[in-house]
Amino acid sequence: MINVGVIGVGYWGPNIIRNFDGCSQTQMAIASDLKSERLSFIQKKHPALKTTADYREIINDPAIDAVAICTPVFSHYELAKEALQAGKHVFLEKPMTSTSQQAEELVNLAAQKKLTLMLDHTFIYTGAVQLIKKLVDAGEIGDLYYFDSVRINLGLFQHDVNVIWDLAPHDISIMDHLLQLKPESVVATGADHVGAGHEDVAYLTVYFPNNIIAHIHANWLSPVKIRQTLIAGTKKMIVWDDNLPNDKIKIYDSGITVNRTKAEIYDTLIQYRTGDMWAPKVPLTEALSLEVNHFAECIQSGKTPLTDGVAGLNVVRILEASEKSIKARGKEIRLA
Amino acid sequence: MINVGVIGVGYWGPNIIRNFDGCSQTQMAIASDLKSERLSFIQKKHPALKTTADYREIINDPAIDAVAICTPVFSHYELAKEALQAGKHVFLEKPMTSTSQQAEELVNLAAQKKLTLMLDHTFIYTGAVQLIKKLVDAGEIGDLYYFDSVRINLGLFQHDVNVIWDLAPHDISIMDHLLQLKPESVVATGADHVGAGHEDVAYLTVYFPNNIIAHIHANWLSPVKIRQTLIAGTKKMIVWDDNLPNDKIKIYDSGITVNRTKAEIYDTLIQYRTGDMWAPKVPLTEALSLEVNHFAECIQSGKTPLTDGVAGLNVVRILEASEKSIKARGKEIRLA
Amino acid sequence: MINVGVIGVGYWGPNIIRNFDGCSQTQMAIASDLKSERLSFIQKKHPALKTTADYREIINDPAIDAVAICTPVFSHYELAKEALQAGKHVFLEKPMTSTSQQAEELVNLAAQKKLTLMLDHTFIYTGAVQLIKKLVDAGEIGDLYYFDSVRINLGLFQHDVNVIWDLAPHDISIMDHLLQLKPESVVATGADHVGAGHEDVAYLTVYFPNNIIAHIHANWLSPVKIRQTLIAGTKKMIVWDDNLPNDKIKIYDSGITVNRTKAEIYDTLIQYRTGDMWAPKVPLTEALSLEVNHFAECIQSGKTPLTDGVAGLNVVRILEASEKSIKARGKEIRLA
Amino acid sequence: MINVGVIGVGYWGPNIIRNFDGCSQTQMAIASDLKSERLSFIQKKHPALKTTADYREIINDPAIDAVAICTPVFSHYELAKEALQAGKHVFLEKPMTSTSQQAEELVNLAAQKKLTLMLDHTFIYTGAVQLIKKLVDAGEIGDLYYFDSVRINLGLFQHDVNVIWDLAPHDISIMDHLLQLKPESVVATGADHVGAGHEDVAYLTVYFPNNIIAHIHANWLSPVKIRQTLIAGTKKMIVWDDNLPNDKIKIYDSGITVNRTKAEIYDTLIQYRTGDMWAPKVPLTEALSLEVNHFAECIQSGKTPLTDGVAGLNVVRILEASEKSIKARGKEIRLA
Repeated sequence: MINVGVIGVGYWGPNIIRNFDGCSQTQMAIASDLKSERLSFIQKKHPALKTTADYREIINDPAIDAVAICTPVFSHYELAKEALQAGKHVFLEKPMTSTSQQAEELVNLAAQKKLTLMLDHTFIYTGAVQLIKKLVDAGEIGDLYYFDSVRINLGLFQHDVNVIWDLAPHDISIMDHLLQLKPESVVATGADHVGAGHEDVAYLTVYFPNNIIAHIHANWLSPVKIRQTLIAGTKKMIVWDDNLPNDKIKIYDSGITVNRTKAEIYDTLIQYRTGDMWAPKVPLTEALSLEVNHFAECIQSGKTPLTDGVAGLNVVRILEASEKSIKARGKEIRLA
Repeated sequence: MINVGVIGVGYWGPNIIRNFDGCSQTQMAIASDLKSERLSFIQKKHPALKTTADYREIINDPAIDAVAICTPVFSHYELAKEALQAGKHVFLEKPMTSTSQQAEELVNLAAQKKLTLMLDHTFIYTGAVQLIKKLVDAGEIGDLYYFDSVRINLGLFQHDVNVIWDLAPHDISIMDHLLQLKPESVVATGADHVGAGHEDVAYLTVYFPNNIIAHIHANWLSPVKIRQTLIAGTKKMIVWDDNLPNDKIKIYDSGITVNRTKAEIYDTLIQYRTGDMWAPKVPLTEALSLEVNHFAECIQSGKTPLTDGVAGLNVVRILEASEKSIKARGKEIRLA
Repeated sequence: MINVGVIGVGYWGPNIIRNFDGCSQTQMAIASDLKSERLSFIQKKHPALKTTADYREIINDPAIDAVAICTPVFSHYELAKEALQAGKHVFLEKPMTSTSQQAEELVNLAAQKKLTLMLDHTFIYTGAVQLIKKLVDAGEIGDLYYFDSVRINLGLFQHDVNVIWDLAPHDISIMDHLLQLKPESVVATGADHVGAGHEDVAYLTVYFPNNIIAHIHANWLSPVKIRQTLIAGTKKMIVWDDNLPNDKIKIYDSGITVNRTKAEIYDTLIQYRTGDMWAPKVPLTEALSLEVNHFAECIQSGKTPLTDGVAGLNVVRILEASEKSIKARGKEIRLA
Repeated sequence: MINVGVIGVGYWGPNIIRNFDGCSQTQMAIASDLKSERLSFIQKKHPALKTTADYREIINDPAIDAVAICTPVFSHYELAKEALQAGKHVFLEKPMTSTSQQAEELVNLAAQKKLTLMLDHTFIYTGAVQLIKKLVDAGEIGDLYYFDSVRINLGLFQHDVNVIWDLAPHDISIMDHLLQLKPESVVATGADHVGAGHEDVAYLTVYFPNNIIAHIHANWLSPVKIRQTLIAGTKKMIVWDDNLPNDKIKIYDSGITVNRTKAEIYDTLIQYRTGDMWAPKVPLTEALSLEVNHFAECIQSGKTPLTDGVAGLNVVRILEASEKSIKARGKEIRLA
C-alpha cells in the first residue's frame, strides 16, 4: 500500500484525494493547505484524513511514499524538488513548472533518485484520447496533416498566468501524446483586453517537420464554451467535440487525392473524397481514476509513466516559447 | 437604364448576370468568356444575352455603361484598368487585385475618371452583416475586444492562390466593415500539406490599436464545414453561425466586469456575468440583389459605394501582408 | 421518346416540368393551368413549351403519351380517370385521391387499360430512404420495433385538408415502403386551433401485426422545423434527421437484450447495449430526377413502378381512417 | 427544527437525504430500507444518520415530524396512509399512488388531519419550469394552443409499470402546473415490444377545453435521449430542450395571424409571422433544494404546497386513464 500526501486542496485537490482514496493500491494519509477553511472542507468529506497547514509535515514524514502537488504553478518546482529530495514519488499538477529549466532539473532529479515523477495530464487518460491514439498509431488516419484545437469559454481568469498557460496545457499535452514529434518552432499571438497584465485571448501555432502544423485557440472571453479538436490526415479526418454527451468523436472517411499525372495536371491535380462517418463508442471511465492507478503501478513496477516528467517538460517548453512569441507579436521562437 | 457587360462566366458569373437581369435599373447586354461552353450555357439560360469570346468587344462598345469583372484574380487589374480607361463603371470580383499597388492604381484611376468602382464583397450586403453592423454602430456591443472567424471545409482547392487569398477575403472585408479601424500589422502561419505550392490551412492574426485583435482560420482540409464568427465587446458578445438555417446570430448579454478596488484587488478583480441570449430575425433578401441595386444607385447618384475601391484595397493589403508573413513563419508585417 | 403533358403549374409543377425536361427518355410538350400568370411564368422558363388553360387539350391530344397531374387533391380522381380512359400513362401527385374508393377505381382502371399509374411519392427516391430500405431489407435492423416520425413547422396551412392530409403522406408512404406490412388499424388525435375547420396539429398511431407500431406527429404550428424519423429494431436503431446537411442518417448499434433465464428473471430480464454510431454517406442525386426516369422505364418496359397505384391507395386508406378517428377523438378505425 | 425520516434509500433516496440534510429548517434523523447494503451505503455518506430495516420505527417515533417516502409506487398508498394516521407530514415520491381512489383518500386524510402532504414533482421547482410558468401567467404566450413533450431514451425499463407511468409523470405534472386546466379526456396508444408485459413505447393525448391539447411521447427504446417540450400560443411559442447545457428555453416571437375579412377569405385567411428568438438565462439552483425548503415552509406556515396532494391526484388520474385507453387501443377515456 502506497501512502499518499496531498499538498494543496483548492479546486482540483478534492478530486485527487477522492481518487487516491478510491484506489486499491494507495491510501490517502494527509493533506496540507494554507487556508484552514479548505482543510475543514476536505476533512468533512474524508473524516479519516489528517490535515496540516505546513506541507513540510508531509514531505518530512517517513511514512509517506508519494506526494501529490496541486498548488499554483509558481510553487511546483520548489515543492516537487523538496519532495523528490526527500525520496518521495511525485504526482504533479500541470503545467509542470514556470520554466523549462526547472522542468529539466526535476526530470533529472527524479531519474537520479530513481523515483516516479508523473504529470497530471488528465486528458491522456480519457477514453476519447486513448481511442484517438489507437487510431493514429494503427495508421487509420494516414500521414498527419494538422492538429487544430479550440478551447474557449467565459472565464475563469487566472491571476498569475495568461490564457495559454491556463488552458493550452490540455491541448499541448494531447498533441504531444498523439503526434510523438519534436516541434520545430512556435508562433503565438494574443491580446490582454481587460488590462490584467496577461493575454485573455491567444492563438498558438506549432511547426513540426514534414509540414505538419498544430494550432490552438485559447480564450477566456468567449460567450460560448467550445472544446473542439480537428485531426486530419491523408486517409481520414477526426472531429472531437468534447462538449457532446455522446458521439464525441467522429471519424470521417473524407479527404483529398492528389493526382500527379503530368498531362492533366491543371484540372485533376486534386480530387475530393467524402465518405461515411463513424462515431465509435467512447468508454466512460473516469480518467483520473485510471491515472491514479497508473501512478501506483509505475511506482511499484518502476516503469515510466505515460505522462512522465519529459511529457511535462515538452509542454512547458512550448508554453515558454509561446510567451516569448506573444510578447514579440508572433516572432517565431525555435525550440532547441 | 444602365447597360452592363460581364467578363467571365465561371462559377460566380451566372449569379451576377441573373441579378443584373433582375434589377430594374440595369440591363444585361453582353457576356464574354474564353470557354465557348460557358457562353452556350449562359445563353441557354438568358436567350436574349449577346455573347463573345473577346472581352474587348465589351470594353470598346460605347453602348455599355458598366462592366462586371468575374475572372480569376490575376486578370482583375488589367481588365479593370482597361474598363475604367474606356470610361466604364466597374463592378469587380474579390479579391480586388494581386497586389496592393495595383489596387491603389485602380482606386486613383476611378477617382480621376469620376467613375464608380465597386467591389463585390457580397457578405456586406447580407442581412446578417447589416444587422451586426447596426448593433456595433449603436454601441450595443460596447468597446470591441476581438473578431474571430473560422471558415473551413473540404476543398475547393484553387490552383493559383493559397487558402487565405481564397477564403479569407470574406472575413477580412466583414472585419474591415464592422471595425472601421486601421490595422497595425499582420501575423500569419500555415502549411501546404499536399505539395500544391500554396498553403491549404492557414491562420491569420490582425493587430489593431487598443489591443483589439482579429483572427481568421481558413482551411481547405476540414472534414466539416464551419462558418462561425465571434465578436466580443465590453457589453455584449455575438456568435454568428452562418451554417444555421435560423437563429444565425446570437447575442449574449455576457461578459466580464473589472473591479479595480485596490484593497480587494486579488479576489474581485474580474467578475463574470452571463445573461440572456437573443437571436433577432435576420432578413433573407438575396445579398447580391441588394448589392447590384446599390451599384446602380451609386452610378446614378455619384455617391461612394459601401464597398468601394478603398474597401477592396484594405482587403488586398492584409492578404499581401499575410502572404509575406506566412512565408516567413509568422514574422509580423507592419501595414503602412 | 415519351411525350408528356403537365396539368397544374402551381408550387410543385415547375419541378416536375424541369425534370421531365431533363430526362433523356421524355419530352415536355404542353402544360395547362387555370391561372394565366402561372402559364406565362413557366413559358418564360421553358420557351419551347406549349401552354393552355384547358387540360382537355392535353388529354385529347393523341401525340401525348403521359400526363403528370399536379393539381389540388380534390381534382386528382377526375383528371386521372379521364387521362387513363384516354389511354395516357399517369404520373400523379400525392395524396392520390380524396377517398380510398376513388384510389381503388384508378388502380383497377390502370390495370385494365395496361397503363402505367405512378404516384409521386418523392421521398421513396431519395438517397436517404433508399439507404434505409437497403439496411432494413438486409436485416441489419433486425425485427422492427417501431417507426416514429415528426414533421412539424410553422405553416403552410392548406385550405382544403387538415395537417395529416398535407404533411403525413410523406411519412406514411415512407413507412409503407420500409415496412411492407398490412396495417391493422389507426388511432388519430388532433385539434383545430385557429378555427379553420381543419386540424393544424395532429398525432397518428398505426398498429401493425407483431406489436409493431408507427406514430406520426404532423404540425403546422411549430416555431421550429423538425424532420426526424426514428426506426428501431432488435439489432440496430436509426435516427434520420432530414434537416441536416450532412450525416442525415445515423445508425446506432444500440438496443436491449432480453434474457429469459427463469431463476434470475427479476434482475436480469433486460440489459442495455450502447455501441458505435455510423453515418453512411447519403447519395445526393435529386430524387425527382430518379423518379421521372423510373416512370419512363416503367412505361417502356411495362414493369410496375416502385410507387404504383397500390402504394398510393395504401396511403389514402390510412389518411381516410385517420380522419375518421380524429373526428371521433381517437376511436380505433380498423383497416379491412 | 423539523425532524425527518426517509423510507426507501434506492436511486432517488440519497438525493432526498442530502437535501433534507442541507436544509436549515430540517434535520435528517433516520432512514429505512429493506436492503441492508443500501443502509450501509447511506450511513457511510452520512455517519450521523440512524438506520433501520423497519419503516415502522420511523412512523412510530414521536420525535419524527415528517416522513419522506421514496419507495416503489405500489407501496406509496399504504406507507403514506400509515404516516398520516400517525400524524406525520408526508413528502411523497411520484407517481403518488397506483390508483386515483388511493390518491383521493390520501388527499382527504391529510386535509382531515391538517397535515402537509407534498408530492415530489421535482421539475416544478426547476428554474426552467418556473421561468415558463411566469411567462404563461403573464400572458406572454397568449392563449394556449398546445403542449407537446417528448421524453425518450434507451432504458431504464421498470419491472412493475409501463413507460407512461415511469416517464410521463414529469410531463403531466409540468403540463398540469402550467395549464391549470381540467382535462376532459385521454387517448393513449403504445406497444410492448419485448414481451415484458408493459408498454415500452407510448403516446398520450390529453384533451382540454377550447381545443387545447397536450401530447406526450414516452419511450424506453430510443437510441437517442430527447427531452423536448413545445408550448405554443397565439402570441409566442416556446421550445424547451432540457438536454442543452445553456439556452435551454427559447421563446419565438412567431405565430399566425388569422384574418377573417370576408372578401379575401381564401387568400388571406392565415398569415405567418416569424420574428426574434429570445433565450432568457435560466437560474441553476438545484430544484430539490428549493423543493425541500418549500416543504419545510408549508409545514411551518400551514400553507398549501405548490405540488400538493391534489397535484399528485391530477397526475394519477391521467396515468390511470391512459392505461385504460392504451389497453383498448386508443379508446377515449373521459375524466370525471
